Amino acid sequence: MVNPSAGGTETHGDPQSRLPDPVDTALRVRYGECDPQGIVFNANYLLYADVAFTEFWRATVGPWQEMVLAGFDAVVAAANLRFRSSAIFDDELVLRTTARGLGETSLRSDVAVRRGPETLVEIELRHVCIDVSSRAKAPWPGWIRERLSPPVGRS
Amino acid sequence: MVNPSAGGTETHGDPQSRLPDPVDTALRVRYGECDPQGIVFNANYLLYADVAFTEFWRATVGPWQEMVLAGFDAVVAAANLRFRSSAIFDDELVLRTTARGLGETSLRSDVAVRRGPETLVEIELRHVCIDVSSRAKAPWPGWIRERLSPPVGRS
Amino acid sequence: MVNPSAGGTETHGDPQSRLPDPVDTALRVRYGECDPQGIVFNANYLLYADVAFTEFWRATVGPWQEMVLAGFDAVVAAANLRFRSSAIFDDELVLRTTARGLGETSLRSDVAVRRGPETLVEIELRHVCIDVSSRAKAPWPGWIRERLSPPVGRS
Amino acid sequence: MVNPSAGGTETHGDPQSRLPDPVDTALRVRYGECDPQGIVFNANYLLYADVAFTEFWRATVGPWQEMVLAGFDAVVAAANLRFRSSAIFDDELVLRTTARGLGETSLRSDVAVRRGPETLVEIELRHVCIDVSSRAKAPWPGWIRERLSPPVGRS
Repeated sequence: MVNPSAGGTETHGDPQSRLPDPVDTALRVRYGECDPQGIVFNANYLLYADVAFTEFWRATVGPWQEMVLAGFDAVVAAANLRFRSSAIFDDELVLRTTARGLGETSLRSDVAVRRGPETLVEIELRHVCIDVSSRAKAPWPGWIRERLSPPVGRS
Repeated sequence: MVNPSAGGTETHGDPQSRLPDPVDTALRVRYGECDPQGIVFNANYLLYADVAFTEFWRATVGPWQEMVLAGFDAVVAAANLRFRSSAIFDDELVLRTTARGLGETSLRSDVAVRRGPETLVEIELRHVCIDVSSRAKAPWPGWIRERLSPPVGRS
Repeated sequence: MVNPSAGGTETHGDPQSRLPDPVDTALRVRYGECDPQGIVFNANYLLYADVAFTEFWRATVGPWQEMVLAGFDAVVAAANLRFRSSAIFDDELVLRTTARGLGETSLRSDVAVRRGPETLVEIELRHVCIDVSSRAKAPWPGWIRERLSPPVGRS
Repeated sequence: MVNPSAGGTETHGDPQSRLPDPVDTALRVRYGECDPQGIVFNANYLLYADVAFTEFWRATVGPWQEMVLAGFDAVVAAANLRFRSSAIFDDELVLRTTARGLGETSLRSDVAVRRGPETLVEIELRHVCIDVSSRAKAPWPGWIRERLSPPVGRS
């Protein structure tokens, strides 16, 4: 869905580093998330993507609030969703979050919403790093960048 | 639903003042607020109550953020809901908010969710005034109290 | 919070039966569930209660949809919430659901929203059994009633 | 944002017909729609887009349920969001919905979320017509198609 070689400043193609491993998050569909068609209301997939990305961040960088306390935040600049099939109440879903490209101030990722072997919804996200006090775009601080682009050979 | 004479410190029974007039707020049910039964999901009535109370506040006291900028906020301490009938997608509802009792630090009110002549849901709320910086319970500041208990005779 | 001996037709006081055991459900607070005060928006506790009750039902009676396919549903007739303290983003909560009284057509329960040893919010619920096709109130079918009031002595 | 000449089967370029006029929908941001950053949580813009599209449909085709009762529904197949700036609590927004291309079974549109002269968020939508009973993709029925592509010269 995403061409990781597209962004010139991205480290993805850097032979000295790689992007982190995908992270899976399990989630059960809540009744209140479903609409009169009996399926998950479309806006809730973007809510799911936020849950998934938060867990990706926890596994890869650390708890979200650790970043905020350090003076940085990440906001969604773009989101593209493709709805292929529908989840229903009580479905057990797996959200797979995969980093696709790391820029100076941004991170592209995608979240695949799966039920068993089937991908129901595909979501591409672009997050941008901001400074919490000024709310202006900011380069990723070094410690975050390192965790998002671990050098080849690490474990 | 509420006994206004119950609270000893409440001004409701004070012959020199009264509680403000009820405020009506119109609202159309959104598709994403309805569940697989085709009706508004129960938690969303509490969301509606917040919308209604915000409009009551605007009409009676002023914009909510004016209070926050002045260093005070109001939080919900209790909410009781009675579900009598169901609203469905695209229904045009009227939310009637009525103040029921003003205390030193609290305000009791109720919100009636109506569709035409029918009351679908009854919601009792108890808000408590807090100091924004300490987040501790605080007496209503004078200017808010005056707007919530206008002297008798004021048009 | 609830007086289980209050309802005359309730089986709770029946020496031949008892109510089912409480059921705990773990839940992590999502970012989108929090408001500008940085705390869980009050309406979302009613959403949490629904998640908790669904898991109570799964553990005690079976999957919710099993009931619906058998022609019955349970709707919330009343909900009372007491907000004592606030949950924040990323908190790990435990929702304890306890049945409090079983009537011919109703079930009273409460959900305690806990963070560690602290109870943040207390929610009382009254569900009513309805017939799916007519949407009219209906007595609990025997198989549901049996699972909600297991005879004393059952493991 | 959208190239209306891209879809081969679209009537947009048909000199005998045109797409309907944009429809504006006013909306005030609710407190519970905002997150701890104090801004509208990103998923809620997709909820707003659904509100806007429903009003576009009402103005152009008729009430949504009229279509459903006639045996058809429209589901979102794709949504792309660009977040340029943020709305906050109590903001009065205008959502402008513009049809961009009509296919045999689909409709492309976009929703611009505006605050005064500023566009905060741009959302592209692709809806697909389905048969309510089979839930399979279906051509737009004639009466819907006519309202979505009024002949040039009408009013």
